[in-house]
Amino acid sequence: MAEGAALEALLQALRRLPGVGQKSAARMAFHLLQHDRPGAVQLARALEQASERIHHCTLCNTLTEQTICAVCQSPQRDRSKLCVIETPADLAAMERTQAYQGMYFVLMGKLSPLDGIGPQEIGLQQLFDRVAPRASDGKDQPQREVQEVILATNFTAEGEATAHVIAQGLKSLGVQVTRLARGVPVGSELEYVDLGTIAHALADRR
Amino acid sequence: MAEGAALEALLQALRRLPGVGQKSAARMAFHLLQHDRPGAVQLARALEQASERIHHCTLCNTLTEQTICAVCQSPQRDRSKLCVIETPADLAAMERTQAYQGMYFVLMGKLSPLDGIGPQEIGLQQLFDRVAPRASDGKDQPQREVQEVILATNFTAEGEATAHVIAQGLKSLGVQVTRLARGVPVGSELEYVDLGTIAHALADRR
Repeated sequence: MAEGAALEALLQALRRLPGVGQKSAARMAFHLLQHDRPGAVQLARALEQASERIHHCTLCNTLTEQTICAVCQSPQRDRSKLCVIETPADLAAMERTQAYQGMYFVLMGKLSPLDGIGPQEIGLQQLFDRVAPRASDGKDQPQREVQEVILATNFTAEGEATAHVIAQGLKSLGVQVTRLARGVPVGSELEYVDLGTIAHALADRR
Repeated sequence: MAEGAALEALLQALRRLPGVGQKSAARMAFHLLQHDRPGAVQLARALEQASERIHHCTLCNTLTEQTICAVCQSPQRDRSKLCVIETPADLAAMERTQAYQGMYFVLMGKLSPLDGIGPQEIGLQQLFDRVAPRASDGKDQPQREVQEVILATNFTAEGEATAHVIAQGLKSLGVQVTRLARGVPVGSELEYVDLGTIAHALADRR
């Protein structure tokens, strides 16, 4: 690109984005400076405002501009169901299905011991506290709000491990714990589906 | 992701970056908000400062924080040679070779009639003015500074067309016009080099 501290700083900042290396950063910087200065200013403002305004929902942990997110605030949601997911993107995917009317708990990650992400980092205690029956201190609370915890972590090794650890932790609380069904994706042909998926679909047939 | 105007604005701004679609934008926004808030603030500042400070060099057209860029300012450069390139990234690549000591002219693009990019858009007149002999108005200027124009646009269809148009335009000015040599890349095996390149390398053998 060109010389200069401002440009160097921009390239470095762009490279902190996931999936952006030296060449992509140069291409982005060049595009913004040469063809889309308003886009650069717009992105700067959006980043500032998002950093300032977006926080975690105190109830479900997703990203929101309010103290409690829209889903948690809604009186129409079924508070007896709690769906545990990894990220706000998963929450958006679940919501798009319009097939779920319960509440959420967003882990904001998954267990990944090799990366130093243990139960504390993904707020498992907060999840267990939410599910546990509340009696003594809060008179306005029913004995147990959550009747079913639906584990909807990803079907990857880490997601499965996370689901397993959560299921273990919830065992003593006597709550019903379910997992999203494994099976053949809608619209796919058996010939092209991997064997593990077919085996699961066969075992879980209904 | 989550609901909220700030997040929506951030996603939209990120999608203006080249090569960033809906999923990449969501991944970037999530990464910044969840794992790298300082990175978000840093990127915002860098974008603002770069938009404010980085302009075109009045002489060679590259991106710089000064009125005239470091290369154009340098008294050590050979002012009789002018290398025409497409982008500041190409300038950086040329400089890294340390094989060229002349001056540059950065087109900031290439001729691309289908995209509405004609000779005006890439500043061809500015290039011709620079190469043309100056006599009457500027007494402190020698008759002709530039003796050789080296066309180093990319070896793509559009880059070749651009080089051709520039060569045509410079014909009447009586300046020497050269093109970067086509040939087999250093370190490559003939077996894997495309036929057009081999044919050119054969024709231009020395």
